[in-house]
Amino acid sequence: MTDLSPVARWGDPADAVTLPPGVRDLLGAALGVRPPRPAAATARLPRPTLGAPVLEALRAACPRVETGDADRLAHAAGKSTVDLLRLRGGEAPGAPDAVARPGGHDEVVALLAACAAHHVAVVPFGGGTSVVGGLAAGREGFAGVLALDLAGLDRLVRLDPVSRTATFEAGVRAPRAEQLLAAEGFTLGHFPQSFEYASLGGFAATRSSGQASAGHGRFDRMVVGLRAATPVGPLELGRAPESAAGPDLRQLLLGSEGVFGVITELTLRLRPAPAARRYAGWAFASFAAGTRALRTLTQDGPLPTVLRLSDETETAINATTGGGADAGGGCLAVVGFEGTEADVATRGEAAARRLTELGGTPLGEAPGEQWRAGRFRAPYLRDALLDAGALAETLETATFWDRLPETYAAVRDALTGALSAAGTPPLVLCHISHVYETGASLYFTVVAAQAPDPVAQWGAAKAAAGDAIAATGATITHHHGVGRDHKPWYAREIGPVGVAALRGVKDSLDPYGILNPGILLP
Amino acid sequence: MTDLSPVARWGDPADAVTLPPGVRDLLGAALGVRPPRPAAATARLPRPTLGAPVLEALRAACPRVETGDADRLAHAAGKSTVDLLRLRGGEAPGAPDAVARPGGHDEVVALLAACAAHHVAVVPFGGGTSVVGGLAAGREGFAGVLALDLAGLDRLVRLDPVSRTATFEAGVRAPRAEQLLAAEGFTLGHFPQSFEYASLGGFAATRSSGQASAGHGRFDRMVVGLRAATPVGPLELGRAPESAAGPDLRQLLLGSEGVFGVITELTLRLRPAPAARRYAGWAFASFAAGTRALRTLTQDGPLPTVLRLSDETETAINATTGGGADAGGGCLAVVGFEGTEADVATRGEAAARRLTELGGTPLGEAPGEQWRAGRFRAPYLRDALLDAGALAETLETATFWDRLPETYAAVRDALTGALSAAGTPPLVLCHISHVYETGASLYFTVVAAQAPDPVAQWGAAKAAAGDAIAATGATITHHHGVGRDHKPWYAREIGPVGVAALRGVKDSLDPYGILNPGILLP
Repeated sequence: MTDLSPVARWGDPADAVTLPPGVRDLLGAALGVRPPRPAAATARLPRPTLGAPVLEALRAACPRVETGDADRLAHAAGKSTVDLLRLRGGEAPGAPDAVARPGGHDEVVALLAACAAHHVAVVPFGGGTSVVGGLAAGREGFAGVLALDLAGLDRLVRLDPVSRTATFEAGVRAPRAEQLLAAEGFTLGHFPQSFEYASLGGFAATRSSGQASAGHGRFDRMVVGLRAATPVGPLELGRAPESAAGPDLRQLLLGSEGVFGVITELTLRLRPAPAARRYAGWAFASFAAGTRALRTLTQDGPLPTVLRLSDETETAINATTGGGADAGGGCLAVVGFEGTEADVATRGEAAARRLTELGGTPLGEAPGEQWRAGRFRAPYLRDALLDAGALAETLETATFWDRLPETYAAVRDALTGALSAAGTPPLVLCHISHVYETGASLYFTVVAAQAPDPVAQWGAAKAAAGDAIAATGATITHHHGVGRDHKPWYAREIGPVGVAALRGVKDSLDPYGILNPGILLP
Repeated sequence: MTDLSPVARWGDPADAVTLPPGVRDLLGAALGVRPPRPAAATARLPRPTLGAPVLEALRAACPRVETGDADRLAHAAGKSTVDLLRLRGGEAPGAPDAVARPGGHDEVVALLAACAAHHVAVVPFGGGTSVVGGLAAGREGFAGVLALDLAGLDRLVRLDPVSRTATFEAGVRAPRAEQLLAAEGFTLGHFPQSFEYASLGGFAATRSSGQASAGHGRFDRMVVGLRAATPVGPLELGRAPESAAGPDLRQLLLGSEGVFGVITELTLRLRPAPAARRYAGWAFASFAAGTRALRTLTQDGPLPTVLRLSDETETAINATTGGGADAGGGCLAVVGFEGTEADVATRGEAAARRLTELGGTPLGEAPGEQWRAGRFRAPYLRDALLDAGALAETLETATFWDRLPETYAAVRDALTGALSAAGTPPLVLCHISHVYETGASLYFTVVAAQAPDPVAQWGAAKAAAGDAIAATGATITHHHGVGRDHKPWYAREIGPVGVAALRGVKDSLDPYGILNPGILLP
């Protein structure tokens, strides 16, 4: 029995937030939220099944293999609301039998060989921030489960200032990478909400997308080279920024969520650290008007570094709870430029002219800076909402611009319908946070009163939303990944031939099937 | 025995060029070029091996199946110099037994089923412009070979002006696509040298890159959705511009050169047709100085739409032969901007300031427009050189900026060394024509006197160049593809695990192995 407090919440306890009394009252009055059962103090871990000879073989491959409860619990789950609810209930069904901490590529290779020999399932573990059940490997049919914690692969291997690339080991955490790059005047420009904890390898394995993706692109577009350990040998890719030498195999490993191999090294495109930064708030009369403005900037420029738009509900809730500016009943956009002083000034002014033409009202820099200051705080707010007895979770999708309104309405209706049917009508907030010339993402936040079985309650709502996403032709995930939670929709999305292609790769690279069983692959 | 004239040369006979007498004299004096043996008038085709029952089955799938010599010859080879030399020698070893012209996706599916049932090898055929042996499928072990000419898949299926995407059938030729899009105010912006003949499906299957790739990106980055027919069923990909739902399977089909499936439909990102265009010439003192200028514009902006740099030899030869401006013994860059009037002016002026700071001398618009006017003419010039008894061919690579000088020197030395050893010292010209933040392409043109066996002569030079590319860590092809010619280097480039991944996909999607046997897959 092990202390749950470090794992059943997000991040650093010192950064925990408490809900303002006004919010607490709102939850009770508007949503019927009532205090929940007290969270469990300790967790039940599954009985470990790895015998001494297997552990000896693993330790021969890598000396740092731990089997203590604290280590097992720390690798038992990701950070989805369902993960947290289960842990708060004292359940840790995904806990591995052991945790290995390899110190480099060669130890990863040796561990994979030992796991293959002894039929041990392997869960590559970066920052542990999956919100789609990406760390809950199946143990059925295996001698046991080994978490492969990559935190020891923590070096900047090479920085090439001419090509503007950096080669990192895959376990490097994002803040550490930015710190190392800042010392040389560079940045990756990748700032997802998980930034403070996630690893570069995790970004790659899940096709992460950061809040500055408008300007800096998705993480998968930053990867110009990679090295992976597979059970059949190493894979090294990326001799040039782009190539016509066959399919882009980098893109086959990116998003593979550890089922084809363990990414051990990444070569990433760098950008100069910005000298200037200007984030402004803009009000639009409606989500439709704001969406049109975002589309116009994205298609015709000037393209901001950060470009976001909250819908009417999200704007109003954020304004009420002190998390955003009042947009006069409309929608708040955040438009951020980063770069040289001259560039930020020129592009910022051009964008301001265009946004004004498009019906936008400038709200100044305060709302932009307010968003920037709080942009990694939402997971802490979720903890506080769960503490208060609310169900709080997010989900996201992306589609082409012409389908966006339909997907937006369908997902909102599905979430509202499913949770209302359960007797817990929700608040559904939405924003656009990632834009492309041809389309954009939609990110939904759902808050409702917790039902007696909140895991089942969310499961039904999530299924309804997934069905709505699929029915309107959108993708089941823009940046959270597939994990376990999205598998049914993923299989439909790529169809049986897509599944066959993935299975073909899987059978070739992981013939023993030890890598992340139950994750990603339908 | 069939008339060779339409196939053993590039393009439209009406556009053929004749070498100016000065060039002819130069070839003789500088390279020792002598008039070649007269080209054969007719070609020997391999004996067809498909029996009547098989042809009947094929015609049941698609009524338009031809077995005449002219059709077979027209699908016998691509447009590499080796292809043309063989055809000029009266050899057409790659001629298929029959040519099918399906009218749509369903007929492609039916043909694949018939070919699987009768073990007929299938060669998807777009514009027929491969320069890497991409159309020379193996017939060993098959009942015969069927060329699948996709010219009948020629429709614009849908244009979405909001998302700025167009869905085309894969057989649409590039000029036709541009014509259809221009009517709606759009462009793809994809203008490779093969533009006048190549098909959209061919661009996709080979990861084509156009001359405006600096501004518009590679073709693979334009593809937001695709449909392919495989022997195990259809594959439809692309529900959003980008997704975190597993590996990007679009990127697995792009560059697959027909070995996993036949791409039948593509959804492509569009750009507004440019209102203004300004192409200028710039002189730099050296290839190194010009390379630095290109890198700076690419990394720090403003990024041109077209950005090219000829080395000293190419610059001098082009100036001498009337194909380019004099750069005072240095190197000529072409810097082109396209877009709105205001945008072209602003970016053009900013680029001019930066290029001047970087040591460039402006040569005005004439050299830029001269390049633009002649940009699809090089293959006609090659025909004229072959007519005159010269060997003329190109090859290309890409790598990161820091390795570019080493690769450049190594490939030039390898070509010069190999051809000099054969008694035919060459002219080797080079330019950079595709730029990325982290690196660039190198495109080499080689001219020498033909040896008695020019196919073997070029084979040795090409192998030496390929080895030099591999030894310096560059990719064996930036935009020509793998085909048959690059297979040995491709296998080394992706390694045994990369090959295993491709084989896994192949075995899953084409279990009968009928698709383009001998192409791409090591």
